[in-house]
Amino acid sequence: MSQSRRGFALILSAPSGAGKSTLARHLMAADDQVMLSVSTTTRGPRPGEANGVDYWFEAVESFQQAVEQGRFLEWAEVFGNYYGTSADKVLEGLQEGKIVLLDIDWQGAQQVRRNMDQSGAAGDHVSVFIAPPSKTVLHDRLAGRKTDSEEVIAKRMAAAAAEMSHWGEYDYVIINDDLEAAKAELIAIVQAERLKKSRMAPVMDAMMSDFDQ
Amino acid sequence: MSQSRRGFALILSAPSGAGKSTLARHLMAADDQVMLSVSTTTRGPRPGEANGVDYWFEAVESFQQAVEQGRFLEWAEVFGNYYGTSADKVLEGLQEGKIVLLDIDWQGAQQVRRNMDQSGAAGDHVSVFIAPPSKTVLHDRLAGRKTDSEEVIAKRMAAAAAEMSHWGEYDYVIINDDLEAAKAELIAIVQAERLKKSRMAPVMDAMMSDFDQ
Repeated sequence: MSQSRRGFALILSAPSGAGKSTLARHLMAADDQVMLSVSTTTRGPRPGEANGVDYWFEAVESFQQAVEQGRFLEWAEVFGNYYGTSADKVLEGLQEGKIVLLDIDWQGAQQVRRNMDQSGAAGDHVSVFIAPPSKTVLHDRLAGRKTDSEEVIAKRMAAAAAEMSHWGEYDYVIINDDLEAAKAELIAIVQAERLKKSRMAPVMDAMMSDFDQ
Repeated sequence: MSQSRRGFALILSAPSGAGKSTLARHLMAADDQVMLSVSTTTRGPRPGEANGVDYWFEAVESFQQAVEQGRFLEWAEVFGNYYGTSADKVLEGLQEGKIVLLDIDWQGAQQVRRNMDQSGAAGDHVSVFIAPPSKTVLHDRLAGRKTDSEEVIAKRMAAAAAEMSHWGEYDYVIINDDLEAAKAELIAIVQAERLKKSRMAPVMDAMMSDFDQ
């Protein structure tokens, strides 16, 4: 009767400059149950990029076919190229009890929630929004090298503000003020989510059948 | 516009022998925002017990009056004495942003959830069930000193099994196999709960009003 614990999709979104990539990398280094979902794309590989590591590289036609067959949890077209998260690859990880990390924006997050919720058997999702400590701090980070024009920085800030406006759609919010604290918070969220009643049910059901004897 | 973060009641239940008291003590030592709810009782103080530290000692009549006025989040009569959790004292802690730890059994937990849910303004609750690693391990722990009779041990096991049967009413389950791991898990739950969207709303609303300018 004992089943292994179920995995879950861990959706991570943030405006650029909030430190999402650093936090994701650290989480994967700290927890070997967490694996990164590798996106599928139709753009060609750049020098040094390997299939299945950086992206799954696919032809436009087969990508479009997969879209029609509903085989992406989310997808988008960006500057003429397609990018998407393969449902099969994510579900494979979940079935192995893995926590599959999806590094996507609010639009991708909305698609993943909708698609996973519709197919009940597809497992569940936990979403975390990473926010900067303040508008001022984000501006300073996005301003970056002094060579960028005011216009470029303003565009980055507008994009960040648009992403920020969706924070309330996420289960958790981490304010990345102190990087070490933020790392610990992300690890704590994953640890706590594993202990949720629904995820402990297989183990507890097995233990209770022992108590009932 | 900025508000402080809301506190929450942290309900901890377990069969005896699961290590709940040790975990509760450790959590309070590790996190100064966590405070223990001191129960009110009508039994007389034992040598060394101080009012407001071990219990709030109260006369039977004033206890019963408080029950009638709905001023307990939960209460019970045990061997002719009354024990209860004062709603005012818990809410006072929550308003200060504290995490108020309630060390109660499944019956008390049911009362607290019901009473807090009915009075919407009363803040919210998170509940954690601490389970032993197995029936065998619990039996060995409850058998304790070899001087206890089989009958006494059987009674303890029956009480433990009754408490165990309510694990599914809790938000989280910690299996206390390795004490250090269980300590870290309880701390992670508290840390993650603080980062829940609803609890981050005051901070994020303030930040967003900055972004909207």
